Amino acid sequence: MKTRELRAFLEEKGIDFALFYSAGMSVNPNFRYFSGFNGPGALLAGKDTFLLVPKMEEERARRCNIRNIHPIDKKRLFESVLGIVKKKKLRHKKIGIDKNSFTLNAYKGFRKCFKSKISDISGCCARLRTIKTEGEIKLLAKSCSHADKIIQKCIRNFKDFRTESEAAAFLVYETKKNGLELSFSPIVASGKNASMPHYEPSSSRINKGFCVIDFGVQYKGYCSDITRTVYIGNPSLKEKNIYNKLLQIQKNAIDIVKDNKKCSELYDFTVKSLGKDAKYFTHGLGHGIGVEIHELPNLTLNSKDRIRDNMVFTIEPGIYVKGKFGIRIEDSLMFSGRAKVLTRTSKDLLII
Amino acid sequence: MKTRELRAFLEEKGIDFALFYSAGMSVNPNFRYFSGFNGPGALLAGKDTFLLVPKMEEERARRCNIRNIHPIDKKRLFESVLGIVKKKKLRHKKIGIDKNSFTLNAYKGFRKCFKSKISDISGCCARLRTIKTEGEIKLLAKSCSHADKIIQKCIRNFKDFRTESEAAAFLVYETKKNGLELSFSPIVASGKNASMPHYEPSSSRINKGFCVIDFGVQYKGYCSDITRTVYIGNPSLKEKNIYNKLLQIQKNAIDIVKDNKKCSELYDFTVKSLGKDAKYFTHGLGHGIGVEIHELPNLTLNSKDRIRDNMVFTIEPGIYVKGKFGIRIEDSLMFSGRAKVLTRTSKDLLII
Repeated sequence: MKTRELRAFLEEKGIDFALFYSAGMSVNPNFRYFSGFNGPGALLAGKDTFLLVPKMEEERARRCNIRNIHPIDKKRLFESVLGIVKKKKLRHKKIGIDKNSFTLNAYKGFRKCFKSKISDISGCCARLRTIKTEGEIKLLAKSCSHADKIIQKCIRNFKDFRTESEAAAFLVYETKKNGLELSFSPIVASGKNASMPHYEPSSSRINKGFCVIDFGVQYKGYCSDITRTVYIGNPSLKEKNIYNKLLQIQKNAIDIVKDNKKCSELYDFTVKSLGKDAKYFTHGLGHGIGVEIHELPNLTLNSKDRIRDNMVFTIEPGIYVKGKFGIRIEDSLMFSGRAKVLTRTSKDLLII
Repeated sequence: MKTRELRAFLEEKGIDFALFYSAGMSVNPNFRYFSGFNGPGALLAGKDTFLLVPKMEEERARRCNIRNIHPIDKKRLFESVLGIVKKKKLRHKKIGIDKNSFTLNAYKGFRKCFKSKISDISGCCARLRTIKTEGEIKLLAKSCSHADKIIQKCIRNFKDFRTESEAAAFLVYETKKNGLELSFSPIVASGKNASMPHYEPSSSRINKGFCVIDFGVQYKGYCSDITRTVYIGNPSLKEKNIYNKLLQIQKNAIDIVKDNKKCSELYDFTVKSLGKDAKYFTHGLGHGIGVEIHELPNLTLNSKDRIRDNMVFTIEPGIYVKGKFGIRIEDSLMFSGRAKVLTRTSKDLLII
């Protein structure tokens, strides 16, 4: 959490405080990032920080690092925020909000309570989150190491799984048993199912051929992301070759990561290396990871991002031939002078 | 999916089409509801329906029931929508959007492409989703029956779990193995942890005393929700009495559900029945379930909702004494002339 950096930004811009809120079941990532609380509520972050949570969440919220916690009626979120502002006599001439997550109706409710000037701080939040602190890097590395252990155990046991669902179940079981959360619902896509990059595992039997396993955990709220492709049965020489070609491209892409490098160049490099197979590569080369599984930087065609120290992101080229097969090889890595791969599971084609 | 009903509403209001979008990893529920597609993209629902998805999702999207599927660049969502509108010569004088999920920045992007009149259809979407179709009720009943089987298996095996995390892991394993998704991250809260209604299970040993198990699956996208409280060790007479008092209140609340009943009355009834323990009941009495785990109706103090035929919702009173213990008993039920409980796991206090 870069509360201090956020505060400095607000001060520079003459913003009295930032207001984040989280409604419903899926917790707003900026709210979670700056509050450390994984639940619904509102956060005022200015000279002082106030966390407002529904009464039923109060005890849980007191476990995070914020001293000023106030129980509120979640149906009257902005009225409650105004209540605190008045009670604490907080200056509120200019309020920073995250327009990437603030909804139109929430804004309407907010505007009934506040006539303040508004400043969009979504860009600032994204930037702060893109460059990780030392503490965050430790958590992300630990998250990757957990993901490594679990995916390796899954691969070791792979022979025992009859269905894709069973393999996915194993991954989530190990995640939960270790007191971790998932980064996303794991993908186990075998045979021609693997040609769908975001395939949802089914109760059908594991097919022969390439099988894509895409998995990640959240450790203390920080996401890891790793994909390995194994082979069920006996791969042909052609299949081995295409796997090894993709693997070499993935390794080369990691090798050319350097400071100030345009992310779009890394993407271009991959497309060029794929040559005639580039048409089968249907997604970006990678994405930042942090409290969300998809953050900046974007390693895509039109990305404006550049590689900087203390970014943590994935490199994950793939080849997807519709109705036939799919392969993806993905690592999470951090950059600090050079790329350091955080996910360390072997990438040699494993034949099961 | 009530595409026909949505269309009728749009026609009545002179809205040319509804526009839903889903960005990022957590899929917008109205987008999912009306498209049947669990991924990112945009949906135009008018006389004709068009689903626009990133290239990498195309094959997966073709598995849903929409004929007109177009691959797009997800970074240019609204430009792509405009492209389709122009290509298909769709009338776009007035467009319906869901202001409960449309963000300020998305709206800005949308406004660059469309000068149309705008109508907020969030209320209509919520209303359509509150009253379930026969098909949806079947899916919800099936979802509840899956949740029943899994929670029963978990309770039968409870002696084998050392930690809360292990019990939670068992629940997610069984969910995934059966090709289902979770409705939410399951709660297993033992001893004094149970006083936090949304406690996150930890790797600490299961404590003696009441243990709250709150769990639900998604079957074909439809959520179930059930909570049972078991007792680890030997409950005192006082503990048995408080459990049975809460159980009787839960049963009575179900019994008084009738057509046109105010949801706030059901809540009031519970509070009155709890008497001096009402101060320990810190959340609503229940909520609708559907493609989201929290939908209308709200069974809360200030709710304006009334019970109607074909609503599906939970009844879940609880008692939470901070630092001491927690109990919650929750069923999912549907209403059709009378309340029919969909989750059928025994509610007698189980001593483990």
